[in-house]
Amino acid sequence: MPDLEVVSYRPDPSEFAWTFGGVRPVRSIRPGTVLEVWTEDAFGGRVRGPDDLVTRVIEFPFVNPQTGPFYVEGAEPGDTIAVHFVSIMPSRDYAASSTIPFFGALTATGPIHTASLQDPLEERVWIYEVDRASWTVTYRASRGDYSVVLPMDPMHGTVGVAPASFEARSSLVPDAHGGNMDTPEMRAGVTCYLGVKVEGALLSLGDGHCRQGEGESCGVAVEAAMDTVVIVDLIKGVATPWPRLESDDYIMSTGSARPLEDAFRISQVDLVGWLAGQYGLELLDAYQLLTQVSEAPVANVCDPNYTFVTKVRKQYLPSVAAYGGIHAQLREQASGYSSAR
Amino acid sequence: MPDLEVVSYRPDPSEFAWTFGGVRPVRSIRPGTVLEVWTEDAFGGRVRGPDDLVTRVIEFPFVNPQTGPFYVEGAEPGDTIAVHFVSIMPSRDYAASSTIPFFGALTATGPIHTASLQDPLEERVWIYEVDRASWTVTYRASRGDYSVVLPMDPMHGTVGVAPASFEARSSLVPDAHGGNMDTPEMRAGVTCYLGVKVEGALLSLGDGHCRQGEGESCGVAVEAAMDTVVIVDLIKGVATPWPRLESDDYIMSTGSARPLEDAFRISQVDLVGWLAGQYGLELLDAYQLLTQVSEAPVANVCDPNYTFVTKVRKQYLPSVAAYGGIHAQLREQASGYSSAR
Amino acid sequence: MPDLEVVSYRPDPSEFAWTFGGVRPVRSIRPGTVLEVWTEDAFGGRVRGPDDLVTRVIEFPFVNPQTGPFYVEGAEPGDTIAVHFVSIMPSRDYAASSTIPFFGALTATGPIHTASLQDPLEERVWIYEVDRASWTVTYRASRGDYSVVLPMDPMHGTVGVAPASFEARSSLVPDAHGGNMDTPEMRAGVTCYLGVKVEGALLSLGDGHCRQGEGESCGVAVEAAMDTVVIVDLIKGVATPWPRLESDDYIMSTGSARPLEDAFRISQVDLVGWLAGQYGLELLDAYQLLTQVSEAPVANVCDPNYTFVTKVRKQYLPSVAAYGGIHAQLREQASGYSSAR
Amino acid sequence: MPDLEVVSYRPDPSEFAWTFGGVRPVRSIRPGTVLEVWTEDAFGGRVRGPDDLVTRVIEFPFVNPQTGPFYVEGAEPGDTIAVHFVSIMPSRDYAASSTIPFFGALTATGPIHTASLQDPLEERVWIYEVDRASWTVTYRASRGDYSVVLPMDPMHGTVGVAPASFEARSSLVPDAHGGNMDTPEMRAGVTCYLGVKVEGALLSLGDGHCRQGEGESCGVAVEAAMDTVVIVDLIKGVATPWPRLESDDYIMSTGSARPLEDAFRISQVDLVGWLAGQYGLELLDAYQLLTQVSEAPVANVCDPNYTFVTKVRKQYLPSVAAYGGIHAQLREQASGYSSAR
Repeated sequence: MPDLEVVSYRPDPSEFAWTFGGVRPVRSIRPGTVLEVWTEDAFGGRVRGPDDLVTRVIEFPFVNPQTGPFYVEGAEPGDTIAVHFVSIMPSRDYAASSTIPFFGALTATGPIHTASLQDPLEERVWIYEVDRASWTVTYRASRGDYSVVLPMDPMHGTVGVAPASFEARSSLVPDAHGGNMDTPEMRAGVTCYLGVKVEGALLSLGDGHCRQGEGESCGVAVEAAMDTVVIVDLIKGVATPWPRLESDDYIMSTGSARPLEDAFRISQVDLVGWLAGQYGLELLDAYQLLTQVSEAPVANVCDPNYTFVTKVRKQYLPSVAAYGGIHAQLREQASGYSSAR
Repeated sequence: MPDLEVVSYRPDPSEFAWTFGGVRPVRSIRPGTVLEVWTEDAFGGRVRGPDDLVTRVIEFPFVNPQTGPFYVEGAEPGDTIAVHFVSIMPSRDYAASSTIPFFGALTATGPIHTASLQDPLEERVWIYEVDRASWTVTYRASRGDYSVVLPMDPMHGTVGVAPASFEARSSLVPDAHGGNMDTPEMRAGVTCYLGVKVEGALLSLGDGHCRQGEGESCGVAVEAAMDTVVIVDLIKGVATPWPRLESDDYIMSTGSARPLEDAFRISQVDLVGWLAGQYGLELLDAYQLLTQVSEAPVANVCDPNYTFVTKVRKQYLPSVAAYGGIHAQLREQASGYSSAR
Repeated sequence: MPDLEVVSYRPDPSEFAWTFGGVRPVRSIRPGTVLEVWTEDAFGGRVRGPDDLVTRVIEFPFVNPQTGPFYVEGAEPGDTIAVHFVSIMPSRDYAASSTIPFFGALTATGPIHTASLQDPLEERVWIYEVDRASWTVTYRASRGDYSVVLPMDPMHGTVGVAPASFEARSSLVPDAHGGNMDTPEMRAGVTCYLGVKVEGALLSLGDGHCRQGEGESCGVAVEAAMDTVVIVDLIKGVATPWPRLESDDYIMSTGSARPLEDAFRISQVDLVGWLAGQYGLELLDAYQLLTQVSEAPVANVCDPNYTFVTKVRKQYLPSVAAYGGIHAQLREQASGYSSAR
Repeated sequence: MPDLEVVSYRPDPSEFAWTFGGVRPVRSIRPGTVLEVWTEDAFGGRVRGPDDLVTRVIEFPFVNPQTGPFYVEGAEPGDTIAVHFVSIMPSRDYAASSTIPFFGALTATGPIHTASLQDPLEERVWIYEVDRASWTVTYRASRGDYSVVLPMDPMHGTVGVAPASFEARSSLVPDAHGGNMDTPEMRAGVTCYLGVKVEGALLSLGDGHCRQGEGESCGVAVEAAMDTVVIVDLIKGVATPWPRLESDDYIMSTGSARPLEDAFRISQVDLVGWLAGQYGLELLDAYQLLTQVSEAPVANVCDPNYTFVTKVRKQYLPSVAAYGGIHAQLREQASGYSSAR
């Protein structure tokens, strides 16, 4: 694949982005570029041991640093960019998780959202060993001596473009522009489609997780800095209202909102629209088929908006190549890049 | 397995139960009994073709008929019954689905819940061919000529006991007593644990689905009458606050509530409690582990309460046999029963 | 008013109803009857001092006892009963409030609804002095020495009929049948319209409050036993989907659901329907007018369903007497009864 | 009051702000300044008759223009600004309202929030006559001939400061920074307290309503351009987490979130905190008192976050002057300004 343009970028600590929108691009790239980036973990690399309590080592709002934004040449509102994840590799031999006071699905989250008068849960850190050879992480209980080796399944919690309406949104927020969706589906081999809202799209990513359960209950996954390779392409004249994903086997729509049923509804209505649009099914026929074949793993129930993913196996759908078959094409380019590397 | 007591029961149309609670038992069974039952579909068998619109052929509240209740001898409040699903077999060669005005996840649902001033969606019926030989169902679009053969994956949408507090709840409602949870996880090979709220437990089941997507978006799965075999056992002195499931590979907790995040929270807190109780993990350690390994497929987003399931692979947990290993024991009995049959 | 039939009823402790539905009537009354009843407080009279913690003195589910049900002769599904509150008088010289673990709007409420892993708030009792002469109650802080005299504004938290679909619902639950709506609008001078779901309607009431703030945050108002007089009338052939209220100045619709926006939507859609039905406004014109004149005080944010009330001043509406003017007529009868007493 | 500094500002159409944050200040003002401003209506003045459908005359995101931002000298994060509304006067003799497709409380609102597959409601405009002499507006039904004269009760739907975390938020969004709260309580005579998040606070306001019902059901009030006078003062070293209001009779806390119960919880927890902080009540004593005296009118159930207001009459509280008595002081200055004018 000699025709692939490769751009490598490793931000200095002063170059991180903390919002989607409101930030100047760090690089301009052409559609089709292979982007090799390094992303810091959501803690800015500051949680390295059990004493590194988040409220002690992190100064808000300097949380969840993003690498980018990248200006995609030719991208205009109404277009879609395709971000194909070639590889996501933890760059350190440990990863960290934590409880954070008034953050997470199983606690009150005041004063911002689910406010209550109760005391917060205890703040505590868990450090995971990352073994890139066996492709595993090790969980160790903080009390008692239970430990377990878990499969690695690296993903990016945060990927998105600048939002519409002149907004700048914190990197903690997922919404129609993408952002902090925190879905385990954002793994290598997947293409993420993001609707362009501003000229140049302004793509950023970060928040690598060695693995994460569906829902991200305590609000914090197995957080790690990542060496990540994506190929970024541009689809002109096709709008994508909410972030979509495509793997070899599935098409997937996301929705991010509160309450959680609205996140679900958005992802489902978007997928019905996708089936009715690119796959040619009549609206209620699409609704009926979706009802019987939908997989609906929740992504996060902890962020300022909750995120749902609706997935459908391609084998159940009319034989159409979504978005003109760009996923297969990027898959092939990724494979060429990986071999050449 | 000569020691298994077998009870067969096929209700007359006049014998269906329409509520959990408030109904007299149809049979009394001993713990350990194999129960062979027939359950009618949620439409009372009245939707057989495209013209059988639900609002035309069904008279409310005669929807979702239940087979039962069965009085489990010796069951008292504070106990748990284990319902092991041995087999679930569609009893007809077709199944039905439908849109229903102001019912389903992708429409307003007034005047009961999400009321709006908009017009309802069109009411329409889809009939599926059920092929028990190939273990498939066939979806056919009502407009255009798309059709697809889908794997069969039979399940019971509704299974539960009489609720607490002298209540009687419609068979359409899922709650702490079980009921209309509509989760695809309720399939053969699974043991369902239900906390006993009244003497005799009063177990009923119904609402068979040949298959169902996660969320049951339009509110109606591939509805079918079923010939079903369960083994019902009793666990004395162990309370189960919300319905739990166990398969060979997973333990699972359910939660049913509105809004959807509360259903999620219930299922997750219940699973944390399960890990802290039967598996001996400290509370926050359980929360942390769950955060990284939880699978959280939504069950339904259409019923009077929404239902979530949280699943954890047993391989990630301390080596404990939940509920004293009753699942493995029932699995073995089921296998003996099936061979003998 | 010599033609008013008066029925007096004071239940024995063994005669309370704990559900709406599933209970046999205590009396049969004719439409137009003046009903003089005594209702016990929600604690069954057991919280009399600061040491009477609710979890210590109350055995669930024996909470919120109801007086009734009363069988209204001639009432059939599709009819409406009108319950006019003539007077509500505290029958003791004290009233009680309390925090209750995992109950209330400003705490997690697991395992039933908003489950969390946090500790509950402290359980504590507040006793109020009730002065029927000055028509006040006195709040005293439990820590420090602040106290304040508050106006009495007696109301019934719970009033309802038997629900539809063969259900029996705990007296703690508000829904389309009424029940535990906990709105301060249910005061003397108001007529409450309840749609009849079963023959005889089966009206019960209880849960008197000397006063209550909107939302009933901690879940417990200034709870008191009450001597209450209502006139119960029957409106044949007119259905009322959700409980409605009428005062001299306002018409009001209620909605009870979760999440809270659904309770709001129900009450608003019901009022739009009322304006479009009895008042003759076109649907969107009703929506528009409501948008500018609606008062929307929340009732409770603590019960198994939350309740909202939407109110509109009659002076802003077409000059129509709702429900055929029955409110004015009952008002007059009440006045006759009160004078004669 | 010769010592009051008066700044008058009328923006050109090119000078409106469409976000809170991300915009450069139009003026710098000293604490204590009387600010005389003109604000355009939420439609940018483009809806003047029944044919001016919103989707026809407005180009998104150019909706809800704000006047400002104003840089308040000396304001730093951790401080509070007090914005006292001296007067709010409609500047035209008409005002406009409208239904907008997929916007409002009684319709699906996809694809952004409550997505559904239903058709939108009809788009329609209502024009109100504004009579500043009689201080009324006249509603006229669009179908049939009903009309009614309603009291004027002018308010600002939108007032706020730049948000934290480097965010810029659309003027349609209410959150902790204020913004589009759409509460009828934001009327003349009231002081609004806003926590400062960035240097200079960056105060903007707009979205005048001649009147609005609680909930703002259809999403659009009686929208009008306004000539408004506020006095802006600075309270150093006192943080205010969520916007608060104070009138002569009430203190009020706001909360803006989804679902609606979270907006309620925020406003209630904030008021409990206010009572526990400035008024010296112990936390649970504050919770108890609030439960019995709270008034809780919903503000909006249509914006990207819903807003609730919790109000408590000062007469029920310990005799404390909130925020050091600044409301009374601004009230007096306002009165001096008005007399001098």
